[in-house]
Amino acid sequence: MSVLIVGSTALDSIKTPQADNPRLLGGSASHAAVAASFFAPVKMVGVVGDDFPKKYITLYKRHRIDLGGLQVESGKTFHWAGEYEVNMNHRRTLLTELGVFEKFTPHLPEPYKQTPFVLLANIAPALQHHVLDQMSRPKFVVADTMDLWLNIALEDLLRLLRRIDGFVLNDSEAHQLTKQDNVSAAIKQLHRLGPKFVIIKKGSHGSMLSGPKGCFLCPAYPLPKVVDPTGAGDSFIGGLMGYLSTARGGIEANLRRAMVYGSVVASFCCEGFGLSRTTRVKRVDIEKRVKELERLTRF
Amino acid sequence: MSVLIVGSTALDSIKTPQADNPRLLGGSASHAAVAASFFAPVKMVGVVGDDFPKKYITLYKRHRIDLGGLQVESGKTFHWAGEYEVNMNHRRTLLTELGVFEKFTPHLPEPYKQTPFVLLANIAPALQHHVLDQMSRPKFVVADTMDLWLNIALEDLLRLLRRIDGFVLNDSEAHQLTKQDNVSAAIKQLHRLGPKFVIIKKGSHGSMLSGPKGCFLCPAYPLPKVVDPTGAGDSFIGGLMGYLSTARGGIEANLRRAMVYGSVVASFCCEGFGLSRTTRVKRVDIEKRVKELERLTRF
Repeated sequence: MSVLIVGSTALDSIKTPQADNPRLLGGSASHAAVAASFFAPVKMVGVVGDDFPKKYITLYKRHRIDLGGLQVESGKTFHWAGEYEVNMNHRRTLLTELGVFEKFTPHLPEPYKQTPFVLLANIAPALQHHVLDQMSRPKFVVADTMDLWLNIALEDLLRLLRRIDGFVLNDSEAHQLTKQDNVSAAIKQLHRLGPKFVIIKKGSHGSMLSGPKGCFLCPAYPLPKVVDPTGAGDSFIGGLMGYLSTARGGIEANLRRAMVYGSVVASFCCEGFGLSRTTRVKRVDIEKRVKELERLTRF
Repeated sequence: MSVLIVGSTALDSIKTPQADNPRLLGGSASHAAVAASFFAPVKMVGVVGDDFPKKYITLYKRHRIDLGGLQVESGKTFHWAGEYEVNMNHRRTLLTELGVFEKFTPHLPEPYKQTPFVLLANIAPALQHHVLDQMSRPKFVVADTMDLWLNIALEDLLRLLRRIDGFVLNDSEAHQLTKQDNVSAAIKQLHRLGPKFVIIKKGSHGSMLSGPKGCFLCPAYPLPKVVDPTGAGDSFIGGLMGYLSTARGGIEANLRRAMVYGSVVASFCCEGFGLSRTTRVKRVDIEKRVKELERLTRF
């Protein structure tokens, strides 16, 4: 089955102590769509300006991403610039130029409205609502978010939580939203807000799933070197939804493995700037790391 | 087989936002010895003053800990007081009264010198050396440490690393010692300093083993509430060594499960002040959480 992914499509200028990389392909939808494309047909909804480099359109197409929902508006593509510190754990935003993204309204082409798997990647909760308003009974809807929306659009977000099956967020965001320092306590409270499945991302410490049949502690693939973690969370959830949409059997029966596949795609994402490493990955590379994670966690 | 444990035996006064608990039984050797006692006969070496409460001697004995190596000196028992912040991730020392611990020299009773499994729990590296000087060909030696020794006794510690089989430390200590922010890179460098096995503790994020046959990502048992994490690291390594000393087969074949058992004992430790929860645990409670960790990590 195919996956609908709605989110930001952006140009990222990423600075680290080692290098300066201007105008890479970025955005939550770009990372998630490429990650999902390893497993399933992807339909992407986003907006770019008329300055959007053709090579990135080619890149999407090489991953067989359906661009029927990619709006091209006259103006500038969303541009984000950020800088990472030496240990890659802290980044600061240097620049945010919204451009055409400022007035983005996700319009779903007719054939998109029946897509069974929907990933509402990180964008304003009001836009995530707008996508759901256009869908006709999707099978499984997952939403991601970021601290910004907890600060400026909390009501929209809380309303969204009652409309989705799965909610994905960072541990710090979970603490902010629930005022609970303990992850298990935060998860319990998040379920009460609506979602049947809660997934907490903990960066290099892995992630945690909670659902009706209990919890799963998902490992992160241990990397000897992190080059650029931008988009790792989007890659994780994109890979997860891609895998899930094609796996046989029920959602919950496949969710654990889906998380592991997402985790592995995210690990590749961290090994290069922007999408440079992810786009060179083959399915066989992913399978290899999934097997390795099995070996790394068995006891 | 039995385990020899050498470390501090102390009285801990622990303050949290919820409660104030004066003069609990604490110290690296106390926590490690009680944890190991669930699996194996334990011989403990430490020092206490003549103010040491009899009830704590009774507690050791109830756990069948051999106290032939516990020195009782005239003077005060080592007393540490600390305070935890709301989220339990940060603690600050309010008071350190070394008392009789200041002049502690671990003397091994004759029968102790043949013990096959040796845990050098957290004490000054010079004292850890002194223990090894008295041993006759132990089968497996593991040492723990703390940031203090990296700061004031680095040379002794580096010399120790060439005499032990396994080295256990926190992620922050690993970063401090190797100047590597990346855990995998830090582990690689730690092996070069001597130990065949390196174990990195990451608190609620679990732990990581590295040995000749590769790595193991050991989960932490997810707790709904942490009451007092003091001694969790000591409980972890104590449980690990206790389990390992009685498991059939080679060291490396059992080390993964040994870590999981240690992790489970540490989880109980965090659920009460001092040793109050750990001492109420039955072996069957431990087995239950080990099984649960299996379920929590399988995919």
